[in-house]
Amino acid sequence: MPTAGILIIGNEILSGKVADENSPYLCRELRGLGVDTERILTIPDDVQVIAAELKVLSDAYDFVFTSGGIGPTHDDLTIEGVAAAFGVAIEHSDSIEERIRRATGKEPSETLLRMARVPAGAQLLDSGDRWFPLVVVKNVYIFPGVPELLRKKFESSRELFRGIPFVLKKVFVRQNESEIAPMLNELLEQYPELLLGSYPRIGQESFHVMLTLESRDPGYVQDALDALLEKLPERAIHRVE
Amino acid sequence: MPTAGILIIGNEILSGKVADENSPYLCRELRGLGVDTERILTIPDDVQVIAAELKVLSDAYDFVFTSGGIGPTHDDLTIEGVAAAFGVAIEHSDSIEERIRRATGKEPSETLLRMARVPAGAQLLDSGDRWFPLVVVKNVYIFPGVPELLRKKFESSRELFRGIPFVLKKVFVRQNESEIAPMLNELLEQYPELLLGSYPRIGQESFHVMLTLESRDPGYVQDALDALLEKLPERAIHRVE
Repeated sequence: MPTAGILIIGNEILSGKVADENSPYLCRELRGLGVDTERILTIPDDVQVIAAELKVLSDAYDFVFTSGGIGPTHDDLTIEGVAAAFGVAIEHSDSIEERIRRATGKEPSETLLRMARVPAGAQLLDSGDRWFPLVVVKNVYIFPGVPELLRKKFESSRELFRGIPFVLKKVFVRQNESEIAPMLNELLEQYPELLLGSYPRIGQESFHVMLTLESRDPGYVQDALDALLEKLPERAIHRVE
Repeated sequence: MPTAGILIIGNEILSGKVADENSPYLCRELRGLGVDTERILTIPDDVQVIAAELKVLSDAYDFVFTSGGIGPTHDDLTIEGVAAAFGVAIEHSDSIEERIRRATGKEPSETLLRMARVPAGAQLLDSGDRWFPLVVVKNVYIFPGVPELLRKKFESSRELFRGIPFVLKKVFVRQNESEIAPMLNELLEQYPELLLGSYPRIGQESFHVMLTLESRDPGYVQDALDALLEKLPERAIHRVE
Protein backbone atom coordinates (compact mmCIF):
# COMPACT_ATOMS: atom_id res chain seq x y z
CA MET A 1 0.00 0.00 0.00
CA PRO A 2 1.32 3.45 -0.77
CA THR A 3 2.56 5.52 2.18
CA ALA A 4 2.89 9.27 2.51
CA GLY A 5 4.72 11.92 4.53
CA ILE A 6 3.53 15.52 4.70
CA LEU A 7 5.95 18.42 5.20
CA ILE A 8 4.35 21.71 6.23
CA ILE A 9 6.81 24.56 5.74
CA GLY A 10 6.04 27.81 7.52
CA ASN A 11 6.96 29.95 10.51
CA GLU A 12 3.38 31.23 10.52
CA ILE A 13 2.13 27.80 11.64
CA LEU A 14 4.81 27.30 14.32
CA SER A 15 4.22 30.76 15.74
CA GLY A 16 0.49 30.13 15.97
CA LYS A 17 -0.46 32.98 13.63
CA VAL A 18 -2.15 30.70 11.09
CA ALA A 19 -3.68 27.25 11.72
CA ASP A 20 -2.57 24.55 9.28
CA GLU A 21 -5.60 23.57 7.19
CA ASN A 22 -3.58 21.66 4.62
CA SER A 23 -2.47 18.59 6.54
CA PRO A 24 -6.01 17.74 7.76
CA TYR A 25 -7.24 18.10 4.17
CA LEU A 26 -4.43 15.97 2.72
CA CYS A 27 -4.80 13.27 5.40
CA ARG A 28 -8.52 12.98 4.71
CA GLU A 29 -8.11 12.91 0.94
CA LEU A 30 -5.19 10.46 1.01
CA ARG A 31 -7.09 8.14 3.35
CA GLY A 32 -9.99 8.15 0.90
CA LEU A 33 -7.57 7.21 -1.86
CA GLY A 34 -6.09 4.33 0.16
CA VAL A 35 -2.78 6.04 0.96
CA ASP A 36 -1.40 5.68 4.53
CA THR A 37 -0.08 8.98 5.88
CA GLU A 38 2.65 8.04 8.36
CA ARG A 39 4.11 11.43 9.34
CA ILE A 40 3.15 15.08 9.36
CA LEU A 41 6.06 17.38 10.10
CA THR A 42 5.87 21.15 10.47
CA ILE A 43 9.16 23.06 10.19
CA PRO A 44 10.43 26.65 9.89
CA ASP A 45 11.30 28.46 6.63
CA ASP A 46 14.96 27.39 6.68
CA VAL A 47 16.73 25.87 3.68
CA GLN A 48 18.94 23.51 5.70
CA VAL A 49 16.04 22.23 7.78
CA ILE A 50 13.83 21.76 4.71
CA ALA A 51 16.62 19.86 2.93
CA ALA A 52 17.45 17.56 5.85
CA GLU A 53 13.87 16.65 6.74
CA LEU A 54 12.80 16.24 3.13
CA LYS A 55 15.59 13.74 2.47
CA VAL A 56 14.44 11.60 5.39
CA LEU A 57 10.79 11.71 4.32
CA SER A 58 11.60 11.03 0.66
CA ASP A 59 13.59 7.92 1.62
CA ALA A 60 10.94 6.65 4.03
CA TYR A 61 7.64 7.07 2.15
CA ASP A 62 6.25 6.53 -1.33
CA PHE A 63 4.89 10.06 -1.68
CA VAL A 64 5.95 13.27 0.02
CA PHE A 65 3.73 16.34 -0.08
CA THR A 66 5.16 19.74 0.76
CA SER A 67 2.99 22.74 1.50
CA GLY A 68 4.16 26.35 1.58
CA GLY A 69 7.21 28.41 0.73
CA ILE A 70 6.78 28.67 -3.07
CA GLY A 71 5.69 32.30 -3.46
CA PRO A 72 7.86 35.21 -4.64
CA THR A 73 9.02 36.61 -1.26
CA HIS A 74 12.16 36.35 0.91
CA ASP A 75 10.71 33.60 3.11
CA ASP A 76 9.80 31.32 0.19
CA LEU A 77 12.62 28.78 0.37
CA THR A 78 11.06 25.45 -0.54
CA ILE A 79 12.61 25.23 -4.03
CA GLU A 80 16.07 25.84 -2.53
CA GLY A 81 15.34 23.23 0.15
CA VAL A 82 14.21 20.56 -2.34
CA ALA A 83 17.24 21.20 -4.57
CA ALA A 84 19.57 20.93 -1.54
CA ALA A 85 17.84 17.74 -0.35
CA PHE A 86 18.65 15.98 -3.62
CA GLY A 87 21.95 17.75 -4.33
CA VAL A 88 20.74 19.27 -7.60
CA ALA A 89 21.04 22.82 -8.95
CA ILE A 90 18.21 25.29 -9.38
CA GLU A 91 17.28 25.95 -12.99
CA HIS A 92 15.27 28.59 -14.74
CA SER A 93 12.21 27.06 -16.41
CA ASP A 94 11.43 28.74 -19.74
CA SER A 95 8.13 26.89 -19.74
CA ILE A 96 7.07 28.47 -16.43
CA GLU A 97 8.29 31.90 -17.55
CA GLU A 98 6.13 31.55 -20.66
CA ARG A 99 3.13 30.59 -18.51
CA ILE A 100 3.62 33.66 -16.31
CA ARG A 101 3.78 35.83 -19.42
CA ARG A 102 0.60 34.29 -20.81
CA ALA A 103 -1.21 34.60 -17.46
CA THR A 104 -0.27 38.22 -16.78
CA GLY A 105 -0.11 39.44 -20.38
CA LYS A 106 3.11 41.32 -19.77
CA GLU A 107 6.86 40.99 -19.20
CA PRO A 108 7.35 39.33 -15.78
CA SER A 109 9.10 41.33 -13.02
CA GLU A 110 12.25 39.96 -11.43
CA THR A 111 10.21 39.05 -8.38
CA LEU A 112 7.67 37.04 -10.35
CA LEU A 113 10.50 35.33 -12.21
CA ARG A 114 11.55 33.79 -8.86
CA MET A 115 8.56 31.53 -9.37
CA ALA A 116 10.09 30.14 -12.58
CA ARG A 117 12.97 28.57 -10.65
CA VAL A 118 12.77 24.78 -10.22
CA PRO A 119 15.18 22.07 -9.01
CA ALA A 120 17.05 20.52 -11.96
CA GLY A 121 15.26 17.45 -13.28
CA ALA A 122 11.86 18.52 -11.93
CA GLN A 123 8.73 17.33 -13.72
CA LEU A 124 6.04 19.93 -14.39
CA LEU A 125 2.51 18.56 -14.22
CA ASP A 126 -0.24 20.67 -15.67
CA SER A 127 -3.32 20.34 -13.57
CA GLY A 128 -6.27 22.46 -12.60
CA ASP A 129 -7.16 25.90 -13.83
CA ARG A 130 -4.20 27.88 -12.51
CA TRP A 131 -1.30 28.99 -14.65
CA PHE A 132 1.40 27.40 -12.51
CA PRO A 133 2.16 23.70 -12.84
CA LEU A 134 2.57 21.18 -10.02
CA VAL A 135 6.34 20.74 -9.61
CA VAL A 136 7.49 17.19 -8.83
CA VAL A 137 11.03 16.10 -7.91
CA LYS A 138 11.46 12.32 -7.53
CA ASN A 139 8.63 11.39 -5.15
CA VAL A 140 8.18 14.94 -3.77
CA TYR A 141 5.07 16.89 -4.82
CA ILE A 142 5.49 20.61 -4.19
CA PHE A 143 2.16 22.23 -3.29
CA PRO A 144 1.37 25.87 -2.50
CA GLY A 145 0.61 26.82 1.11
CA VAL A 146 -2.53 28.84 0.39
CA PRO A 147 -5.29 26.31 1.21
CA GLU A 148 -7.55 27.20 -1.74
CA LEU A 149 -4.67 26.70 -4.19
CA LEU A 150 -3.44 23.49 -2.58
CA ARG A 151 -6.92 22.01 -2.82
CA LYS A 152 -7.33 22.91 -6.47
CA LYS A 153 -3.95 21.43 -7.33
CA PHE A 154 -4.60 18.29 -5.32
CA GLU A 155 -8.07 17.75 -6.75
CA SER A 156 -6.70 17.87 -10.26
CA SER A 157 -3.81 15.47 -9.54
CA ARG A 158 -5.37 13.06 -7.04
CA GLU A 159 -5.52 10.06 -9.37
CA LEU A 160 -1.70 9.90 -9.28
CA PHE A 161 -1.88 8.65 -5.70
CA ARG A 162 -4.70 6.11 -5.67
CA GLY A 163 -4.25 2.83 -3.74
CA ILE A 164 -6.84 0.47 -2.22
CA PRO A 165 -9.12 2.44 0.08
CA PHE A 166 -10.09 1.57 3.64
CA VAL A 167 -13.62 0.68 4.69
CA LEU A 168 -14.59 2.62 7.83
CA LYS A 169 -17.37 1.86 10.34
CA LYS A 170 -18.08 4.08 13.34
CA VAL A 171 -19.82 3.03 16.53
CA PHE A 172 -20.92 5.75 18.97
CA VAL A 173 -21.05 4.35 22.48
CA ARG A 174 -22.78 5.68 25.60
CA GLN A 175 -20.36 4.02 28.06
CA ASN A 176 -16.99 5.35 29.19
CA GLU A 177 -13.75 4.24 27.62
CA SER A 178 -12.61 2.44 30.76
CA GLU A 179 -15.83 0.37 30.80
CA ILE A 180 -15.50 -0.87 27.24
CA ALA A 181 -11.70 -1.29 27.11
CA PRO A 182 -11.81 -5.03 28.03
CA MET A 183 -14.26 -5.71 25.15
CA LEU A 184 -12.02 -3.87 22.74
CA ASN A 185 -9.02 -5.94 23.78
CA GLU A 186 -11.07 -9.10 23.25
CA LEU A 187 -12.16 -7.90 19.81
CA LEU A 188 -8.53 -7.26 18.81
CA GLU A 189 -7.58 -10.77 19.86
CA GLN A 190 -10.27 -12.14 17.53
CA TYR A 191 -9.51 -9.67 14.72
CA PRO A 192 -5.79 -8.88 14.97
CA GLU A 193 -5.70 -7.16 11.56
CA LEU A 194 -8.46 -4.72 12.48
CA LEU A 195 -7.56 -1.05 12.82
CA LEU A 196 -9.52 -0.12 15.91
CA GLY A 197 -9.69 3.42 17.25
CA SER A 198 -11.28 4.64 20.46
CA TYR A 199 -11.89 8.38 20.86
CA PRO A 200 -13.48 9.82 23.98
CA ARG A 201 -15.63 12.89 23.41
CA ILE A 202 -16.35 15.46 26.04
CA GLY A 203 -19.42 17.66 26.02
CA GLN A 204 -21.44 15.23 23.89
CA GLU A 205 -24.64 14.29 25.70
CA SER A 206 -25.64 11.41 23.50
CA PHE A 207 -22.40 9.38 23.49
CA HIS A 208 -19.05 9.19 25.30
CA VAL A 209 -16.77 7.35 22.91
CA MET A 210 -16.50 7.11 19.12
CA LEU A 211 -15.08 3.73 18.06
CA THR A 212 -13.70 3.37 14.54
CA LEU A 213 -13.21 0.00 12.81
CA GLU A 214 -11.18 -0.11 9.61
CA SER A 215 -9.74 -2.57 7.14
CA ARG A 216 -9.12 -2.67 3.42
CA ASP A 217 -11.16 -5.90 3.38
CA PRO A 218 -14.90 -4.99 3.56
CA GLY A 219 -15.87 -8.50 4.75
CA TYR A 220 -13.34 -8.41 7.59
CA VAL A 221 -14.53 -5.06 8.91
CA GLN A 222 -18.17 -6.18 8.73
CA ASP A 223 -17.42 -9.38 10.68
CA ALA A 224 -15.52 -7.40 13.29
CA LEU A 225 -18.38 -4.89 13.54
CA ASP A 226 -20.91 -7.70 14.07
CA ALA A 227 -18.67 -9.22 16.75
CA LEU A 228 -18.32 -5.86 18.53
CA LEU A 229 -22.05 -5.17 18.49
CA GLU A 230 -22.65 -8.55 20.11
CA LYS A 231 -20.18 -7.79 22.89
CA LEU A 232 -21.61 -4.38 23.75
CA PRO A 233 -24.78 -4.18 25.86
CA GLU A 234 -27.60 -3.00 23.58
CA ARG A 235 -28.31 0.13 25.66
CA ALA A 236 -24.67 1.17 25.27
CA ILE A 237 -24.93 1.64 21.51
CA HIS A 238 -25.97 5.13 20.50
CA ARG A 239 -25.60 4.65 16.75
CA VAL A 240 -23.59 2.90 14.05
CA GLU A 241 -22.37 4.60 10.86
CA MET B 1 15.11 31.84 24.55
CA PRO B 2 13.28 28.61 25.33
CA THR B 3 12.46 26.35 22.38
CA ALA B 4 9.78 23.69 22.05
CA GLY B 5 8.89 20.62 20.04
CA ILE B 6 5.36 19.24 19.90
CA LEU B 7 4.67 15.54 19.39
CA ILE B 8 1.11 14.67 18.38
CA ILE B 9 0.48 10.95 18.86
CA GLY B 10 -2.53 9.49 17.10
CA ASN B 11 -3.62 7.43 14.13
CA GLU B 12 -6.89 9.37 14.14
CA ILE B 13 -5.05 12.52 13.02
CA LEU B 14 -2.98 10.79 10.31
CA SER B 15 -6.04 9.04 8.91
CA GLY B 16 -7.93 12.33 8.70
CA LYS B 17 -10.71 11.24 11.06
CA VAL B 18 -10.01 13.97 13.59
CA ALA B 19 -8.34 17.34 12.98
CA ASP B 20 -5.53 18.21 15.40
CA GLU B 21 -6.68 21.16 17.52
CA ASN B 22 -3.90 20.80 20.05
CA SER B 23 -0.84 21.91 18.11
CA PRO B 24 -2.46 25.19 16.92
CA TYR B 25 -3.49 25.89 20.51
CA LEU B 26 -0.06 25.08 21.95
CA CYS B 27 1.77 27.11 19.25
CA ARG B 28 -0.38 30.15 19.98
CA GLU B 29 -0.02 29.87 23.74
CA LEU B 30 3.71 29.18 23.64
CA ARG B 31 4.29 32.12 21.31
CA GLY B 32 2.44 34.34 23.78
CA LEU B 33 4.73 33.07 26.53
CA GLY B 34 7.87 33.77 24.48
CA VAL B 35 8.66 30.14 23.65
CA ASP B 36 9.80 29.32 20.06
CA THR B 37 8.08 26.20 18.72
CA GLU B 38 10.53 24.70 16.21
CA ARG B 39 8.85 21.42 15.24
CA ILE B 40 5.42 19.83 15.23
CA LEU B 41 5.49 16.13 14.48
CA THR B 42 2.46 13.86 14.14
CA ILE B 43 3.09 10.12 14.41
CA PRO B 44 1.14 6.85 14.70
CA ASP B 45 0.32 5.02 17.96
CA ASP B 46 3.47 2.87 17.89
CA VAL B 47 5.81 2.46 20.86
CA GLN B 48 9.01 2.27 18.82
CA VAL B 49 8.14 5.34 16.75
CA ILE B 50 7.11 7.32 19.83
CA ALA B 51 10.37 6.37 21.58
CA ALA B 52 12.65 7.21 18.66
CA GLU B 53 11.05 10.55 17.78
CA LEU B 54 10.72 11.63 21.40
CA LYS B 55 14.42 11.05 22.03
CA VAL B 56 15.32 13.32 19.10
CA LEU B 57 12.91 16.06 20.21
CA SER B 58 13.98 15.87 23.85
CA ASP B 59 17.65 16.31 22.88
CA ALA B 60 16.92 19.17 20.48
CA TYR B 61 14.51 21.45 22.38
CA ASP B 62 14.06 22.86 25.87
CA PHE B 63 10.49 21.65 26.24
CA VAL B 64 8.68 18.78 24.54
CA PHE B 65 4.90 18.55 24.67
CA THR B 66 3.19 15.28 23.83
CA SER B 67 -0.51 15.04 23.13
CA GLY B 68 -2.55 11.84 23.05
CA GLY B 69 -2.18 8.19 23.89
CA ILE B 70 -2.61 8.32 27.69
CA GLY B 71 -6.11 6.87 28.10
CA PRO B 72 -6.98 3.35 29.26
CA THR B 73 -7.36 1.59 25.88
CA HIS B 74 -5.19 -0.66 23.72
CA ASP B 75 -3.99 2.19 21.50
CA ASP B 76 -2.77 4.34 24.41
CA LEU B 77 0.97 3.77 24.20
CA THR B 78 2.54 7.09 25.12
CA ILE B 79 3.73 6.03 28.60
CA GLU B 80 5.46 2.97 27.06
CA GLY B 81 6.98 5.21 24.39
CA VAL B 82 8.34 7.77 26.88
CA ALA B 83 9.80 5.01 29.07
CA ALA B 84 11.47 3.40 26.04
CA ALA B 85 12.80 6.77 24.85
CA PHE B 86 14.71 7.26 28.10
CA GLY B 87 15.45 3.58 28.78
CA VAL B 88 13.54 3.53 32.08
CA ALA B 89 11.02 1.04 33.44
CA ILE B 90 7.29 1.64 33.90
CA GLU B 91 6.21 1.92 37.53
CA HIS B 92 2.91 1.78 39.29
CA SER B 93 2.16 5.10 40.99
CA ASP B 94 0.38 4.63 44.33
CA SER B 95 -0.29 8.34 44.35
CA ILE B 96 -2.22 8.18 41.05
CA GLU B 97 -4.07 5.06 42.18
CA GLU B 98 -5.15 6.95 45.28
CA ARG B 99 -6.33 9.88 43.17
CA ILE B 100 -8.41 7.55 40.99
CA ARG B 101 -9.96 6.04 44.09
CA ARG B 102 -10.80 9.48 45.48
CA ALA B 103 -12.22 10.69 42.16
CA THR B 104 -14.40 7.65 41.49
CA GLY B 105 -15.24 6.75 45.08
CA LYS B 106 -14.62 3.05 44.45
CA GLU B 107 -11.99 0.38 43.89
CA PRO B 108 -10.41 1.08 40.44
CA SER B 109 -10.86 -1.53 37.68
CA GLU B 110 -7.80 -3.10 36.06
CA THR B 111 -8.44 -0.93 33.01
CA LEU B 112 -8.47 2.30 35.01
CA LEU B 113 -5.35 1.19 36.85
CA ARG B 114 -3.51 1.36 33.51
CA MET B 115 -3.67 5.11 34.01
CA ALA B 116 -1.60 4.81 37.21
CA ARG B 117 1.44 3.59 35.24
CA VAL B 118 4.24 6.15 34.78
CA PRO B 119 7.84 6.02 33.55
CA ALA B 120 10.26 5.56 36.47
CA GLY B 121 11.49 8.89 37.79
CA ALA B 122 8.50 10.85 36.48
CA GLN B 123 7.42 14.01 38.27
CA LEU B 124 3.72 14.41 38.98
CA LEU B 125 2.51 18.01 38.84
CA ASP B 126 -0.86 18.77 40.32
CA SER B 127 -2.57 21.35 38.26
CA GLY B 128 -6.08 22.29 37.31
CA ASP B 129 -9.29 20.78 38.55
CA ARG B 130 -8.94 17.24 37.20
CA TRP B 131 -7.96 14.29 39.33
CA PHE B 132 -5.01 13.23 37.17
CA PRO B 133 -1.68 15.00 37.47
CA LEU B 134 0.52 16.31 34.63
CA VAL B 135 3.25 13.68 34.19
CA VAL B 136 6.71 15.07 33.39
CA VAL B 137 9.80 13.04 32.44
CA LYS B 138 12.99 15.10 32.04
CA ASN B 139 11.86 17.89 29.69
CA VAL B 140 8.84 15.98 28.32
CA TYR B 141 5.37 17.14 29.40
CA ILE B 142 2.77 14.44 28.78
CA PHE B 143 -0.60 15.99 27.91
CA PRO B 144 -3.92 14.28 27.14
CA GLY B 145 -5.17 14.28 23.55
CA VAL B 146 -8.73 15.41 24.30
CA PRO B 147 -8.55 19.14 23.50
CA GLU B 148 -10.64 20.31 26.46
CA LEU B 149 -8.41 18.39 28.89
CA LEU B 150 -5.17 19.50 27.26
CA ARG B 151 -6.23 23.13 27.52
CA LYS B 152 -7.18 22.85 31.18
CA LYS B 153 -3.87 21.18 32.00
CA PHE B 154 -1.88 23.70 30.00
CA GLU B 155 -3.66 26.71 31.45
CA SER B 156 -2.85 25.58 34.95
CA SER B 157 0.83 24.87 34.21
CA ARG B 158 1.68 27.62 31.70
CA GLU B 159 3.91 29.64 34.02
CA LEU B 160 6.47 26.80 33.91
CA PHE B 161 7.29 27.75 30.31
CA ARG B 162 7.44 31.56 30.28
CA GLY B 163 10.24 33.28 28.33
CA ILE B 164 10.40 36.79 26.82
CA PRO B 165 7.41 37.28 24.54
CA PHE B 166 7.45 38.61 20.99
CA VAL B 167 5.90 41.91 19.97
CA LEU B 168 3.78 41.45 16.83
CA LYS B 169 2.58 44.08 14.36
CA LYS B 170 0.38 43.25 11.37
CA VAL B 171 0.06 45.29 8.19
CA PHE B 172 -2.74 44.42 5.76
CA VAL B 173 -1.77 45.42 2.24
CA ARG B 174 -3.90 45.94 -0.88
CA GLN B 175 -1.10 45.10 -3.34
CA ASN B 176 -0.01 41.66 -4.49
CA GLU B 177 2.91 39.85 -2.94
CA SER B 178 5.00 40.14 -6.10
CA GLU B 179 4.57 43.95 -6.14
CA ILE B 180 5.76 44.46 -2.56
CA ALA B 181 8.49 41.78 -2.47
CA PRO B 182 11.30 44.24 -3.39
CA MET B 183 10.32 46.56 -0.51
CA LEU B 184 10.31 43.65 1.90
CA ASN B 185 13.81 42.66 0.84
CA GLU B 186 14.97 46.26 1.39
CA LEU B 187 13.36 46.30 4.83
CA LEU B 188 15.17 43.10 5.81
CA GLU B 189 18.49 44.58 4.75
CA GLN B 190 17.87 47.52 7.08
CA TYR B 191 16.44 45.35 9.90
CA PRO B 192 18.20 41.99 9.63
CA GLU B 193 16.94 40.78 13.04
CA LEU B 194 13.30 41.38 12.13
CA LEU B 195 11.03 38.35 11.80
CA LEU B 196 9.03 39.30 8.72
CA GLY B 197 6.18 37.20 7.40
CA SER B 198 4.19 37.69 4.20
CA TYR B 199 0.93 35.77 3.82
CA PRO B 200 -1.22 36.10 0.70
CA ARG B 201 -4.95 35.80 1.30
CA ILE B 202 -7.41 34.73 -1.33
CA GLY B 203 -11.05 35.72 -1.29
CA GLN B 204 -10.44 38.83 0.83
CA GLU B 205 -11.71 41.91 -0.96
CA SER B 206 -10.13 44.51 1.27
CA PHE B 207 -6.52 43.28 1.25
CA HIS B 208 -4.27 40.81 -0.58
CA VAL B 209 -1.39 40.21 1.79
CA MET B 210 -1.00 40.15 5.57
CA LEU B 211 2.51 41.18 6.63
CA THR B 212 3.70 40.34 10.14
CA LEU B 213 6.62 42.07 11.85
CA GLU B 214 8.01 40.56 15.03
CA SER B 215 10.83 40.98 17.48
CA ARG B 216 11.34 40.55 21.20
CA ASP B 217 12.53 44.19 21.25
CA PRO B 218 9.47 46.49 21.10
CA GLY B 219 11.56 49.48 19.90
CA TYR B 220 13.08 47.47 17.05
CA VAL B 221 9.74 46.29 15.74
CA GLN B 222 8.30 49.82 15.96
CA ASP B 223 11.25 51.26 14.00
CA ALA B 224 10.88 48.56 11.36
CA LEU B 225 7.14 49.19 11.14
CA ASP B 226 7.72 52.92 10.63
CA ALA B 227 10.28 52.17 7.92
CA LEU B 228 7.90 49.78 6.15
CA LEU B 229 5.00 52.23 6.22
CA GLU B 230 7.24 54.85 4.60
CA LYS B 231 8.17 52.45 1.79
CA LEU B 232 4.61 51.39 0.95
CA PRO B 233 2.45 53.73 -1.14
CA GLU B 234 -0.24 55.14 1.17
CA ARG B 235 -3.11 53.72 -0.92
CA ALA B 236 -1.60 50.25 -0.53
CA ILE B 237 -2.12 50.13 3.23
CA HIS B 238 -5.46 48.74 4.26
CA ARG B 239 -4.85 48.74 7.99
CA VAL B 240 -2.22 48.26 10.69
CA GLU B 241 -2.75 46.24 13.88
